[in-house]
Amino acid sequence: MFCILDPSYSESIYDCREYCGIMSKHENPWIDVEGEDIPATIKLDPVLFRYTHPDAHILDVACATGNVSIELASHGFPVTSIDINHDALEMTAKAAIDTNIPTHPAFARATAIALPFADESFDVVVMQAFLTVVVSKEDRSKIIHEACRVLKTDGHLYIADFGQTWHSAVYRERYLRDLPVTKEEGSFLAYDEKTVEVDYTAHHFTEKELVFLLIENGFEVEFFKRDTFVTRTGNRINGFVVVGKK
Amino acid sequence: MFCILDPSYSESIYDCREYCGIMSKHENPWIDVEGEDIPATIKLDPVLFRYTHPDAHILDVACATGNVSIELASHGFPVTSIDINHDALEMTAKAAIDTNIPTHPAFARATAIALPFADESFDVVVMQAFLTVVVSKEDRSKIIHEACRVLKTDGHLYIADFGQTWHSAVYRERYLRDLPVTKEEGSFLAYDEKTVEVDYTAHHFTEKELVFLLIENGFEVEFFKRDTFVTRTGNRINGFVVVGKK
Repeated sequence: MFCILDPSYSESIYDCREYCGIMSKHENPWIDVEGEDIPATIKLDPVLFRYTHPDAHILDVACATGNVSIELASHGFPVTSIDINHDALEMTAKAAIDTNIPTHPAFARATAIALPFADESFDVVVMQAFLTVVVSKEDRSKIIHEACRVLKTDGHLYIADFGQTWHSAVYRERYLRDLPVTKEEGSFLAYDEKTVEVDYTAHHFTEKELVFLLIENGFEVEFFKRDTFVTRTGNRINGFVVVGKK
Repeated sequence: MFCILDPSYSESIYDCREYCGIMSKHENPWIDVEGEDIPATIKLDPVLFRYTHPDAHILDVACATGNVSIELASHGFPVTSIDINHDALEMTAKAAIDTNIPTHPAFARATAIALPFADESFDVVVMQAFLTVVVSKEDRSKIIHEACRVLKTDGHLYIADFGQTWHSAVYRERYLRDLPVTKEEGSFLAYDEKTVEVDYTAHHFTEKELVFLLIENGFEVEFFKRDTFVTRTGNRINGFVVVGKK
């Protein structure tokens, strides 16, 4: 059930609306956000290639503006990219044309909670700064479980995401200030700089959370690195790069 | 109330028994352990010198076998070393002689919970892999509070200690296995390899724990680094190097 897109016809992006409808009760702010407002800050960690054989079929979950998909496709890997945001898929498609890569990614508009792919379809699943914007713990669990389902045996899940950064007064205050609203330690509200309205909720992980998210949903922890990322607003922040093995 | 020791006469080590008596209700396994059985694995992080002016008087809390005290003294700093373990102080004294450093550390047998020093006596306090063996949260808090008391205004507290390492199956299992006994997440029982009896309880910290330990006891977080340490049994483990400013 792949949705192949000729990137010169972005209106033909396959729209898995039936799947988008399965999102959790929370309203999902990412469906209609402007493509250029989607943060995409973390660089792909080269450790991914240690777990990616030359013919590996890679699924890029929540491809956002397409940086990761394009980079992987430019290395010659067959890539399938999904996002729930139509703008994001268009931008990825456009980037694929502009970059002049030999093989373009395949696209689907879909939610990570119910992937529109058969069991054991992929060798590698990539989630780059994606789980941070999944508000509910339950949804995060479902998402990792889905990644496991669509991976082949011995396939790998690569995650790069933000860690709780208690040593930073900025983030410490955000976690504490917004806890009564978010009800989850390490979560906070991100505000639109222009309107000063709440834009979305973000979660920063502890090592324990990420590790159990993997091992409770079918993975072993194969690789684990603590890193430092820079956010789009220039803050230095704890990060993790994790590879799970199915 | 310093206790200066001529290291050639180790029997003259000042024994602050009245302070050792103030230890928490928990029996302290470190008072009588053999000196050579005291783990001392973390190397001093050079960041310490960024916060240490040339005449800084340094207090090394729980000096163990003296590595840190000797290294600091060899740089010419006046160092005062305390430990509750007599053997540890003897070993530090002996190491000072063997290393042939110009100025030997001063010694006191004392507990970190009630330091036998006047307010504002030191420029820098060092705690190297020490808090990990302080079983009770309450004691840890008192210890940091004491460090703050004996530091001069704008003085610095340097801490290097172990972090919770959930990605390691070895440590994950220890934390979970021993939780019913330790009652604190991230703590575990360390066993004597020969007798297979419980040797001591160790705690591995979260970033949040260490940060709040400082800011709730008179410090600002001036420097924070996530590191990787190697334990005496060769395990790679998360670590933190933290500098607090009074």
